[in-house]
This record gives sequence, C-alpha cells and structure tokens, in this order.
Amino acid sequence: MNKLVIAGSLAFDAIETPFGKTDKIIGGASPYIALSASNFNVDSCIVSVVGGDFPKEYFDILSNKNINVDGVKIVKEGKTMFWAGKYNQDMNQRTTLCTELNVFAEFNPEVPQKYQDADVLMLGNITPSIQKAIIEKMSRRPKLIIMDTMNYWMDNTPNELEETISMVDVLTINDEEARQLSGEFVLLTAAEKILAKGLRYLIIKKGDNGAILFSKKGEIFFAPALPMKSVCDPTGAGDSFAGGFAGYIASKGKTDFETVKSAVIAGSVMGSFCCERFGTENLQILNKDMVTNRVKQFENLTRFNF
Amino acid sequence: MNKLVIAGSLAFDAIETPFGKTDKIIGGASPYIALSASNFNVDSCIVSVVGGDFPKEYFDILSNKNINVDGVKIVKEGKTMFWAGKYNQDMNQRTTLCTELNVFAEFNPEVPQKYQDADVLMLGNITPSIQKAIIEKMSRRPKLIIMDTMNYWMDNTPNELEETISMVDVLTINDEEARQLSGEFVLLTAAEKILAKGLRYLIIKKGDNGAILFSKKGEIFFAPALPMKSVCDPTGAGDSFAGGFAGYIASKGKTDFETVKSAVIAGSVMGSFCCERFGTENLQILNKDMVTNRVKQFENLTRFNF
Repeated sequence: MNKLVIAGSLAFDAIETPFGKTDKIIGGASPYIALSASNFNVDSCIVSVVGGDFPKEYFDILSNKNINVDGVKIVKEGKTMFWAGKYNQDMNQRTTLCTELNVFAEFNPEVPQKYQDADVLMLGNITPSIQKAIIEKMSRRPKLIIMDTMNYWMDNTPNELEETISMVDVLTINDEEARQLSGEFVLLTAAEKILAKGLRYLIIKKGDNGAILFSKKGEIFFAPALPMKSVCDPTGAGDSFAGGFAGYIASKGKTDFETVKSAVIAGSVMGSFCCERFGTENLQILNKDMVTNRVKQFENLTRFNF
Repeated sequence: MNKLVIAGSLAFDAIETPFGKTDKIIGGASPYIALSASNFNVDSCIVSVVGGDFPKEYFDILSNKNINVDGVKIVKEGKTMFWAGKYNQDMNQRTTLCTELNVFAEFNPEVPQKYQDADVLMLGNITPSIQKAIIEKMSRRPKLIIMDTMNYWMDNTPNELEETISMVDVLTINDEEARQLSGEFVLLTAAEKILAKGLRYLIIKKGDNGAILFSKKGEIFFAPALPMKSVCDPTGAGDSFAGGFAGYIASKGKTDFETVKSAVIAGSVMGSFCCERFGTENLQILNKDMVTNRVKQFENLTRFNF
C-alpha cells in the first residue's frame, strides 16, 4: 500500500452555523484531510502536535480508519490548539471568533521513520517555513508534494511562501488567492504565472462554483461542485478536498494528468460529503458505496453526447 | 428541415470595452440568436421590427446565413432601436449609456404564415406581453417554447411575466434573477420553485461560472464556461447561448433531457465564440469545423475516468 504523509493542524473546533452549534469537536486541517484520504487504498500518517488535553476518543476516530498517529507529538503540559468560528445566514462568510494556537505555536514536526519515504506528501495550510521543514525531513523526495495555503501567508510571509511553493508540485488555493498571488485578474493568466513558479499542477477552488485544474503543459480540467439543497457546515471542505485529492493520487501511485483529473473529482466528492454534517461527522461514517455513488453523480452532472 | 422562430430586438449597438469601441453595428438580441442558431441544420426566421434607416448590408449579414427576415417589419418613416453601452475594466459590469426604443416601442409582431407551425419558438428578452402575443400567433403549439427574460420585467411587469412563464417550456435567466424570481437563495431550491410554475426545463446562467440545467423531473446538468484569456466583448453572449440552444434542439427535433443537455453545450459554445470579437463579428465567420472543435474542448474540460 502506498504511503501518504499528512501535515496539518489537529485542534478543537467550536462551530456555529444557522443549523446549530458544536462544542469542542475534533478539528484542524489534518483530521479532515486524513479521514477523506482514508476512503482510498492508502497507508497514511498524520504529522502534527496536540496538548495533554486531547482526548483518546479523538485519536480513536483516526485510528478506527487506520490512520497512523505516530507523528502526532503530545505535549503533556500544553493545551491543544483551539479555533471557534461562526457562519452567516447564507454560509458565504464566516467570522473567526477565537484562535488559540497553544502547543501549535511551537510545532516542531517529526516525520516517523517508516513514513519518511512516503509516495505522497500533503502539506495542509500552515506556516510555509514549517511546510518546508517537513519536506526536508523526508528521506527521499515524494513522487508528489501537494501544498495548501491561504492569503494570510501571502500577506505576512511572502518570501517563505515563495520559497516553499518552489519546492512543491501542486498548489491548491481559491480564486481570490490566485488573483492576489499572481496580480492577474483573469484566472487563466493567473494560473500561467503561478505555474511558472515551478509547479506541475495548480488547483484553483471556486467554492460552490467548482474547481479548475491547470497543468504546466497547458492542460485544463474543470470539476463542478454538486448543487446542494443545504450546506450544514462548510468547515473543512477545503481540507476534505485536499484529502480526497491526495488519497486518490497516493492510492494510484501515478501523477499523470488523467490521474490528477480524477483526483480533483475525488477531492470534490469529499468536499461535498464534508458539508452535509457538522465537523468531521459525515467523513467518519462514509463507506465505499457512498463514495462510488457520489462519483457517479459527479459524472452524470457533466456528461453529454453531442 | 425543422423550423425555428426567433423573436427579439433588432437594433443598432454602440459598444465600448477596454479593447476598443464600435460605431453603430448590427445589434439587439435577434441577430445573435439567429447567427448562433444558423450553425445547426435549421430553417429559422426572425420576427422583429426596424426603421427605414436599417441598412441592406445588415439584412445581408442575416440572409447570407439563410436566416429568413420576412418577419422583420420595416417602418419606413421610423428609426431603428439604438443601444449604447460601456464595460468596465474587468468586464464584469456594464453601464447602459443610452437606450432609444424608437420603432421597437410599438412592436406589433407578425409571424410569417410559413413559420406559424414552427417546431421551436425562441422568445428573446422583450416585454412579456409581446412574448405572449407571439405564442398566440403560432398556428399550432411548437414542440418547445424557450423564453429569455431579465430582472427588469420581474421589477416592472411581474404579473405579465408570470403569465408568459406559465405558457412556455424553458426559461433562461441568471443566478441573481433566479434568486429574485423565487425568493430563495440556494439555487437548487430556487430552481424547484421556478420549475413549479409549469416549466419543463430551467437554465440558470452563471456567467464565467457556467450554466446549470434543471428539469422538472429533478435531473441536473452542469455546463462549464470555457476558461478564456481575454473576453473582447461580452455583449450578446446570453443571446448567443439562447441561439445555440434553440438551434440545436430545433435541428434534432427532440426535447428529451439528453438532447437538451447537448443543447446547453451548444449554447455555451456559441456564448464563448461571441465574446472573442466585437458584436456579432465572430458569429458571422464561424464554420462547422470551428464549432466541432469547440464542442470537443468543452468535452475535454470535464471528462474523466475514475
């Protein structure tokens, strides 16, 4: 089974949407990524850090899906990262009510030896310098390094961000971030400029308008979003996308355009499941049939015979 | 050859975009619709009105593509409708500089007898009461009646609009208009409410985010927009979409979901061509190969093998 290393935050999340409110549930990027990836045939490992207050039941949520947590450092005397956010009525905007980095502020990542030769490395949205440090801790270069990031790092650590981007193969950002990073309004032009930083693939996410995959060879693929009647909680949708994407590629062990196209669909499928319930709830109960049926729905959504 | 009746404005347009400026070129909805439809195997006829100032060369643009203009009334002593508009830098907004309805203010449509039994009727975006009058002038009910409309009629003639909608099979509007017409924010819910007005199909256009087709049976199809490096002039893109859509369906003589899906692609193809040059310029020079290749591009954009 191919190996996938997932680096990202592991935290307590408190979420409020028009549909309800949660207490401190399992959150951060890495559980969404890892649970989504677990739907594909892959041996994955989380690299992260938590405090002594992180409950065993939350580790069990991961272990139950055969996700290795040996790379999660437990700082006994420290507190786990905490994030609280609230969504507005139409779910298009959210307000961060609180971010306490706690032990994550001094995250010094260690990749377990068994996973240092992983096939795929998925870098969740964290400080670019930590993303870089993780790349350097791999004993051999993964076949594919995928990096998620956001406008915060473009504003605050642009040099570190550029350096890390130059070391990876795939970057995932949203449309506004693509415009900011490139200084170009038209996405096709923005994509060309960003790919020129040394990427093989760029994925621009457009929320409920789908996602576009661009390759450095000039190929383009468009994955729609599934029209949904109600989004219960969009938290983690982007991380679930990343997890489905990375998990699919790791399971195939290939990085050609055809494989990467399907991986974008796998990501879109996981993003759509994620939004249907609070937090990682829906990701915890998925089975193979549900995933296969959802892929079929995506296929039917765009297939035509002219 | 199946017959298509196209009702819509025929006007002079003066357009200004960041890429240039035109003088009084051939405009209004009907030339875009008819030129787009002419790429499919169909016998189409425009129902409209112009003044004595409408030049023979502009009629020739239509006749050269075998578009029948017997339904275009010429009011010798009157002036042709005139519209002038200007686009902002990113092409997402336009300002109407001037609208002179002229002879169009008293448009009393006549459908030539030969076309009163047409298979498909395409009602361009005009006063709902005139759209209704045209439906009533058909000697037998067309297999499919398609209606384009806009927020202006929702604001100003909501009762007439509802009445005309109840008489047609397909409605094309954009996402904001769908929200306004239904009072629902979520497009899937908005679509259900609008379909319940008696429609068989609803098409919600999302500009450079593509278009979604909904059927009253609950089927959904998504057509992406082609990522483009530069949009020269978006004027008429919606009408070109309508023309490709109506032309494809008329040429096939079928109205099942599979046919209507492909018609949405035909519409998207025409919309993409339209934007590449000013006014109807690009639509005038299209050939079969260009259309076939563009359809292939749309196919490649979304096709995957999971």
